[in-house]
Formats: sequence, structure tokens, C-alpha cells
Amino acid sequence: MSNSKKAVVLLSGGLDSTTVMAVASSRGFRLFALSFRYGQRHSIELESAAQVSKVLGAERHLIVDIDLRAIGGSALTDDIDVPKERSQAEMSSGIPTTYVPARNTIFLSFALAWAEALSAEDIFIGVNALDYSGYPDCRPEYITAFERMAQLATKAGVEGTTRIKIHTPLIALTKAEIIKTGLNLGIDYSLTHSCYDPTSEGLACGKCDSCLLRLKGFSEAGAVDPLKYAVN
Amino acid sequence: MSNSKKAVVLLSGGLDSTTVMAVASSRGFRLFALSFRYGQRHSIELESAAQVSKVLGAERHLIVDIDLRAIGGSALTDDIDVPKERSQAEMSSGIPTTYVPARNTIFLSFALAWAEALSAEDIFIGVNALDYSGYPDCRPEYITAFERMAQLATKAGVEGTTRIKIHTPLIALTKAEIIKTGLNLGIDYSLTHSCYDPTSEGLACGKCDSCLLRLKGFSEAGAVDPLKYAVN
Repeated sequence: MSNSKKAVVLLSGGLDSTTVMAVASSRGFRLFALSFRYGQRHSIELESAAQVSKVLGAERHLIVDIDLRAIGGSALTDDIDVPKERSQAEMSSGIPTTYVPARNTIFLSFALAWAEALSAEDIFIGVNALDYSGYPDCRPEYITAFERMAQLATKAGVEGTTRIKIHTPLIALTKAEIIKTGLNLGIDYSLTHSCYDPTSEGLACGKCDSCLLRLKGFSEAGAVDPLKYAVN
Repeated sequence: MSNSKKAVVLLSGGLDSTTVMAVASSRGFRLFALSFRYGQRHSIELESAAQVSKVLGAERHLIVDIDLRAIGGSALTDDIDVPKERSQAEMSSGIPTTYVPARNTIFLSFALAWAEALSAEDIFIGVNALDYSGYPDCRPEYITAFERMAQLATKAGVEGTTRIKIHTPLIALTKAEIIKTGLNLGIDYSLTHSCYDPTSEGLACGKCDSCLLRLKGFSEAGAVDPLKYAVN
């Protein structure tokens, strides 16, 4: 089912974006993986992204440097404690401190720029509206609005030669369904990394929102997470 | 007419964005100037932006590093010759090689992130649909679509506490009208820099699209451009 079209895939090296890249591959797209060095507290996720790009056969893996720390406003880039051991109810109430202002908008903007430079019209992003505790830029209505804006933003859109499409294959899936999808596509999830606050040895903490959602997902999928955790 | 609201102003240090910053100031906004080091061929425009920020009394001037060269696709960031001495008709036909893919989308995304971090809801950008020869992301319908997307992208938008507004005071003005507006607001245009391809001494070339539009604008405004040019 090869269509030889190019797709830009936003790849953090986490469970979700890795699954998205495998989905894009299974649909026959040529893969152009895009990651960011944006002042994350740790670089493990970029190492995961590089591994995943290699294993899934991306033609290119571009890492763009952007300085989100200059902007401020998030526990993921600022010197604020990442919340730990929150219940599902706590995670679902309001927008967490790990939210980075307008992050997906910035990431999608770069994906759009690269898509235009590559003459690609397909962008894949692993946003998820269900498990992803209240991030505004993970909702379908946001993605639709971005897509509409993108169409008006580009040379190709204006000239009518391409139609930008933002693919969000995970948007309506539970974490367990995402994991099942990935396992069916043969993903080795030991390559992926989800933790907001890994140990200095690079082990996942097992306590932040992201670890808790991942572990719950594996449990509900009836599968074993191959990742090593600092606790357990 | 002070309303003490904060505004994020996209400031390149060129004629247009400097005029926009003076307009925002005249409307009583507190100024937060945002510039980018994005692999421009020259750094003169950042020096101009710093000067303008100081003279117009910005509370902060933030310069964000982003690597647009990694993306490619433009004469402004790639190793492609900047076109020179083109007629108005040539400038108006099609999208020029100086177009940077999705640049305004990337710039506005960072402005949105900073606005959210500052709890500001006003963003100013000096786009212009008339003189600006065919850039898709300078048109009113594009700005409207970005604004709609921005509303859905942010915590504040979702919580209904702020309403993001993208101000484009120049969008329907000719270059001559922009210059008259700025002169009426007391701008010293010798601080600003517009050239795509300045000499090694920092003089404007006088031949690129940007210089030609600027010189024509001053001429039509019946004013003298205080900037020094390599040619006359």
C-alpha cells in the first residue's frame, strides 16, 4: 500500500509519537521525522527519537533547536517541580503545570514550514484528546483550526497545488488502544520514553502523570511495559 | 489613553514592525518586543530591533533563537541570491524566493506562547497585504484563521479568561501611508533597517525588493529616507 507521498511526523520519542510514526509508515508514507531540542530538562527523549527514526526507516530525522525556556510558563522547561503520584481525577481537573504554552502550535508551525520546503502535504502528530488531561492544543477543534490556518499560510495552499492535512490517528484512542495499535504494528516500546522527570541514570520515574498514564495503558491493554522504571 | 494592557509586538527592526510598535505604544499598550535570531544572513536587523525597543520604551525585548536554516526553502536563509532591481510588476508576480516557508506562522506561534506566559491577549504584527508582493501569510484571511486557531490553542482561551487578538494596523496601508503614520508618531526611521542584503559595512543595498519598496514609499510620502544606502 505504498503511495510514496512524503509525510512530516512530529516525533518526541515517546509512546504516542512513536505509534503515530508506525501508523504513517503502515499507510505507505515516506517518513520525515521532526524533533525539537527545546530546553527539556533531559535529552533522553531525543535519543529515543533518533533510535525510533532509525528503526522505522525515516528518510530524515531533523532536530530543530528552539528556546522555549525564554518564553517560560511551564514545569517542563522552568524550574518548577513536576507533579507526582496524582490520581486520575487530579490529572483530569484543569490544565497541568506541565503544559507548555502554545507548544503544539509551535511544533506544528515548524512541521508546516518543513512540509512546505519538502513539497509534502501530510503532517502527523500524536495528540490525544482522551487520556491527555486537559491540554487545550490536543483537541480535535484545535487541530481543525490549525489545518484551516495552514491552508492559508503556505505558497502551495495559495497556489492550490497542495492541501495540507494534519493527521491525528490517536486523537480518539485510549492509552490502551494506542498501545494495542502499536503492538500490532510491531513497535518495540522499549525504544520509547515517556517520563517527564527521569532519574540521572535515565530511568523513568514511574510517578509523574506521563508514567502513570503509560503504566495504566499497558495494564489495560493486557501487556507488559518493556521499559525499566526507577520504582517497582 | 493608557489602558496598561500588555502587548507582544513582533519586531524585526524594519520600517513596518517599528511603525507597528509605535502604533501599539500610541494606543497605550505596555510593550513586550519579540525578535528572532533565525539564521538571517546579517544581524543588523537585531541591532535595529534592540535600538527601537529602547527608544520606544519596551518593558522587555526578547530574542528567541530558532533555526530556520535547518528547514530550508528561502533565499533569506539559504545560499540563494537575493533578487535585485526588479520592477514593481516583477515583484507583484508570484511569491518571491525571499519568502520563508511558514515564517509568520512560526513567529506568531512564539508570540502566542509568550502572550500566554505573560497573561497578555494582544499581539501586534506588521504584515501588509498591499506592498508585500505575494506572501501568503500577509493576507487578512490568514490572520483571521490564525486568530481563530490561537483562541483554541491556549489555556486562557479554553478557560474563557482571555480572547487573543492579532492586531495588524498596517495590513491595508500603502508603504507611503505606513511611513506617514510613523512620521506622525515621531519615529526616527534612521533606526530601522529594511535591506535583505546589506553591504559588509551595514549599508542598505538600495536594489533588493525591500529597499526598492522603502525608497518608493518615502518618495510617495513626500519625505526623505534618513537611512544611508550603498547606491543612490
